[in-house]
Amino acid sequence: MEWTTNAAGRRVPNEIEGKILTPFAGPHADPRGNAFRQVRLNTRPVAERGKPDKRVRGWNDLLDRLDIRDGATISFHHHLREGDAIVLEVVRRLAERGIRDLTLAPSALFSVHDALLPYIRDGVITGIQGSMNGTVGDACSHGLMPKTCILRSHGGRQRAIQEGDLEIDAAFIAAPCADAFGNANGLGGKSACGPLGYPKPDSEHARRVVVITDCLVPYPCAPWAISGSNVDFVLEVESIGDPAKIASGTTRLTRSPTQLRIADLTARFIEAAGLMREGFSFQSGAGGISLAATVFLAERMRRAHVHASFAHGGATKVLVDLLNEGLLGSIIDLQSFDLDAVRSCRENPRHIASDPYISYGPRSAYCVANMLDVAILGATEIDIGFNVNVVTHSDGILRHGIGGHSDAAACASCTIITAPSFRKRIPVIRDRVTTVTCPGEVVDVLITERGIAINPRREDLRERAARAGLPLVDIEQLHAEVLQITGRPELPRFKDRIAALIEWRDGSIIDVVREVE
Amino acid sequence: MEWTTNAAGRRVPNEIEGKILTPFAGPHADPRGNAFRQVRLNTRPVAERGKPDKRVRGWNDLLDRLDIRDGATISFHHHLREGDAIVLEVVRRLAERGIRDLTLAPSALFSVHDALLPYIRDGVITGIQGSMNGTVGDACSHGLMPKTCILRSHGGRQRAIQEGDLEIDAAFIAAPCADAFGNANGLGGKSACGPLGYPKPDSEHARRVVVITDCLVPYPCAPWAISGSNVDFVLEVESIGDPAKIASGTTRLTRSPTQLRIADLTARFIEAAGLMREGFSFQSGAGGISLAATVFLAERMRRAHVHASFAHGGATKVLVDLLNEGLLGSIIDLQSFDLDAVRSCRENPRHIASDPYISYGPRSAYCVANMLDVAILGATEIDIGFNVNVVTHSDGILRHGIGGHSDAAACASCTIITAPSFRKRIPVIRDRVTTVTCPGEVVDVLITERGIAINPRREDLRERAARAGLPLVDIEQLHAEVLQITGRPELPRFKDRIAALIEWRDGSIIDVVREVE
Repeated sequence: MEWTTNAAGRRVPNEIEGKILTPFAGPHADPRGNAFRQVRLNTRPVAERGKPDKRVRGWNDLLDRLDIRDGATISFHHHLREGDAIVLEVVRRLAERGIRDLTLAPSALFSVHDALLPYIRDGVITGIQGSMNGTVGDACSHGLMPKTCILRSHGGRQRAIQEGDLEIDAAFIAAPCADAFGNANGLGGKSACGPLGYPKPDSEHARRVVVITDCLVPYPCAPWAISGSNVDFVLEVESIGDPAKIASGTTRLTRSPTQLRIADLTARFIEAAGLMREGFSFQSGAGGISLAATVFLAERMRRAHVHASFAHGGATKVLVDLLNEGLLGSIIDLQSFDLDAVRSCRENPRHIASDPYISYGPRSAYCVANMLDVAILGATEIDIGFNVNVVTHSDGILRHGIGGHSDAAACASCTIITAPSFRKRIPVIRDRVTTVTCPGEVVDVLITERGIAINPRREDLRERAARAGLPLVDIEQLHAEVLQITGRPELPRFKDRIAALIEWRDGSIIDVVREVE
Repeated sequence: MEWTTNAAGRRVPNEIEGKILTPFAGPHADPRGNAFRQVRLNTRPVAERGKPDKRVRGWNDLLDRLDIRDGATISFHHHLREGDAIVLEVVRRLAERGIRDLTLAPSALFSVHDALLPYIRDGVITGIQGSMNGTVGDACSHGLMPKTCILRSHGGRQRAIQEGDLEIDAAFIAAPCADAFGNANGLGGKSACGPLGYPKPDSEHARRVVVITDCLVPYPCAPWAISGSNVDFVLEVESIGDPAKIASGTTRLTRSPTQLRIADLTARFIEAAGLMREGFSFQSGAGGISLAATVFLAERMRRAHVHASFAHGGATKVLVDLLNEGLLGSIIDLQSFDLDAVRSCRENPRHIASDPYISYGPRSAYCVANMLDVAILGATEIDIGFNVNVVTHSDGILRHGIGGHSDAAACASCTIITAPSFRKRIPVIRDRVTTVTCPGEVVDVLITERGIAINPRREDLRERAARAGLPLVDIEQLHAEVLQITGRPELPRFKDRIAALIEWRDGSIIDVVREVE
C-alpha cells in the first residue's frame, strides 16, 4: 500500500480495494473536481402508453421485482429518525431470502438501527457508505465489516451519488404520504416527518426506486418532495415507523450549567463579533448547547431589534416560534425535529423544505450553507490546530455520522464549534484529533465553558470579541489547562487495517479510521 | 446521403452534418434508449467559502463574464409568451458585440420574436433547436438558416438537454421574481407568469445559467421553481417584458359555429365513450375549440355529478373556476395563460406547478401525461392513417412548434384530435400529412364539424360512440367528402435540402422538413 500525507497532515492510502483515492488537498481545493462532468442519471427507456402499475402487492412481490442480488447497494433516508421501521424490515426480508454481502447507504442511522448488528455478524451487511452511528459504527471499528466503509457528509453523499462514486441498486424511500404513482412528501399522514429531501439524490440516480408508504392518497400527492417520475414501485404498508419517535425532538432547555455557559458565551460572541446584523442568518442544531444558544441569541436579537433573514438546518419548535414572532424571515429546513416544525413546514410558506443538493451540494453553484453568516456546530474532539472530529470518540471508535457538519463549516462565513473542554474526564481539546473530519482552516472559533478560542486566521473576530470583554483564551493554553484537570489521556490502540475512509465533501480522503485492537 | 424509410413511412437521412441519426421506430420503441445512461450535468468545482457575488452590474458586465463566442448555443423559455423582451434583448446585444453563428434553443417562440428575422438574415442566428414559430419558421423553410434545425416536443427538448444532444452554452432565464442568489419563480412581481418550469432542464444542464429579473426580492425567494444552486449570474433589469401580453389568455368562448360544433361533439364523445368517469383526468388547451370543449365537458360533469381528479397542461380561468367549484381535484400546470391562473397557482396548493421532466419526460418513470384519461389536441393536418402534423401548414412552411403535442398524444390513454375538416378551402384531412410530427398509432379519434372518425385500432371507442348515437364517419370517406368541397389541393414544391429535422420524443427522426421552392 502506498501512502500520501494529505493537506490535513494525515497519512492516507493512494488506493484501496482496487479503487484509486485522491488525498484531501484543502477545504476548497477540489482535486477531483471539474465543471460539466459526465454523471450517471437513472434515465429509463421510453414508457409505454397509459397509466403505469407501480403498486406492488406486498413485500414479496416488491423484492421479487427488484431482483436484488448478493453484493448490491441499497439506500435509505433518516427522516424517520428513531421511529424508522423500514431499514430493518428490508434487511430482515433480504436476509430471509438468503441475500448476502449488501452495502448499506443510509443518509444516517439511529440507535433503533443497532438491531442491524446480527446481520453484520452474519455477513448479510458487509459494508456501509454514508453514515455510521452507535453500535453499527462500533462494529465497523471492531473489524466486523469486511469492506472498507466510507463516511460522507450530507453534501458529500449527494455528490457521490450524483457522480457515480456511490452507485445505488435500490433506494427504499419511506414516505409518510404518497400516491400510487410515487409522488411523495413528509407533510401528511400519521408518520409525518416534515421535509423529505435527503432521499432526493437517491430517487434521481438509483437503478430502482421504491416508495413505501403508510398513507396512500389519491394522485396527485402534492407538493412532491419526491417526484413519482423517478419512482419505479410503490408499496403500501401498515406502518413505516413509530410516530412517537419520528418527531420526538425536545425543546426543553438544558439544565447543564456547562452547556448553558457555552450557549450564553456563543450568543454573546455572535453579537459582539458583529455577526448579529439586521438580515443575518444562522445554522444551529437540535442538541442541548445549540438550542440554548438559539434561545439566548433570540433574546439578544429582540433587545437589539435585529431580525434574521433565515435559519438553516434542522427545524425545531424554538425556530418555529421565532418565525411566527417575526424574528426570523424564514426557515430553510432539511429535517424537522418535532411536531411543531412538521406543522409549520406544512402550513407556513416561509418554512421552506430543502434538499442536500440545494442546502449542501459541493458541486452546486454555491449552496444555502454559503449564505450563512454563522454556523454553530459541535465536535467530539477539536485540536490545537482547530481540526475537528465528529465521527469517533477518543477511544478511536466510530460512533457518529458527519451529517451536514463539514458542509456547513466549509461554507458558512463564520464557523463556531461549541463543546465542553472535557467530557467524563476525557479532554475534548487535543494535541491532535483522533480523526479529522473537518480541517482547522474552516473552523473560526471554539467556545467552551472555559472561554473562547479564536483561530489565529481570524484576527478580525478576536479583536471584536476582546473589545467586548469576552473571555478569550489561547487554544494551546486551554489544552494545557484541560490536561491538568484530566491528566494526559490514554491513546487508542489501532490495528493496521483501515476500517473506514473519511471523505471530504469533494470526494477526497481527509482521514482514515483504523480497526481498534 | 443515405436514407432509411422509418416506421412512420417517411424517408429520413442516416446522417446529417456529421451526426448519426436514428430513424423513428414506433412511438414507444425507443431505438436510442437505454436505462442508466451517462448524461452531462453542469456540476461545478467546489465553491469557495461564504456568500457568492452572482449579481452583475448590467448587460455588458453579464456578457463580458459569459464569454459567449461565435457558434454558441443559447437558450430561453417561453413563459412570458407575447410579452417576452429578453430573447430580442440578448440577441441584439450579442449582435452588437459582433457575435455570429448562434444557435437558439427556445422552448417556444411567439410572434413577438418575428423581430429576430434581421439577425437570421445577417448570420447572427444560423440555427434553431427546439421550436420555430411564425416568421422564424418561415425563414427556416425558405433556407435562411444555414444549419439544419431541429424541432422537438417539450418532453423531447427536456430529454435532449438531459442527454447532451442539445448542449447549451448559456441559458438566459427571464424570472418574474428572483433573489440575488438566483432562486426564482414566476409567481410574484409585475411580470408574474405562473409556473416557471420550462427552463428547469436548462438550469440543470447548461454550461452557464443566468437569471434576469425585474423583481429582485430578499433571499430566499421561495418557492424556487429555479434553484439558485444552478445559477451563475443574476441580472436585475427595469423590465423583462410587457405584463399585458404575458398573461393575456382570453376565456371568451369562441363564436365560430364550426368550433362550437367540434367542441360539443368532443364533450359528447368523452362522456359517451365512458372516459368521463369519477376521478378521470384530461388535458385540453387554450385554443378556441379546447376552451369550449372544456366548458361543455364541465357542464356534462355537473349534470352527471362526476369530478375529475386533475387537469394537465396550460392553465386558464376556465380550469381555475372548475378547481374552485370542486369539479376538478387539482390542476397540474406547466404554463399559466391568464392572470386568474397565475393567481391560482400562487395561492391554491391544489394548483400545482410542474416542469417538462415531470409532465412529459420521455425518460422519466412515466410522466403526468401517462396519467391522462384523455388528451384533446389540435393539428394543422391529419391524414387517413391518423398521422398528425402540427408544425407545417399545407404549403410546407414551418409555422408552429410541437409543444407538448406528441408527448401528450404518446402517453394519454385516449388521444383526441379536434380540427375543422378544412381551413380557408384547404383540406385539413389529407392523404398524407405534409409533415408527420405524431404517428397515427397514438391518435385514437379525430373530431371534426362533419363527424367523428375513430382509429380502427380503437374498436372499443367506436362501439361506445355508436351506441350513443354520435355521428361517426370513416376517415377515408371524410377525406373524400372534404376534397369534393375544396378540390384536390396543390402540393408544395420542395427543394432537396433539409431545412429541419422533426425529432420524436425519444430522439429518433420521425420526419424532415425540406426547404420550399
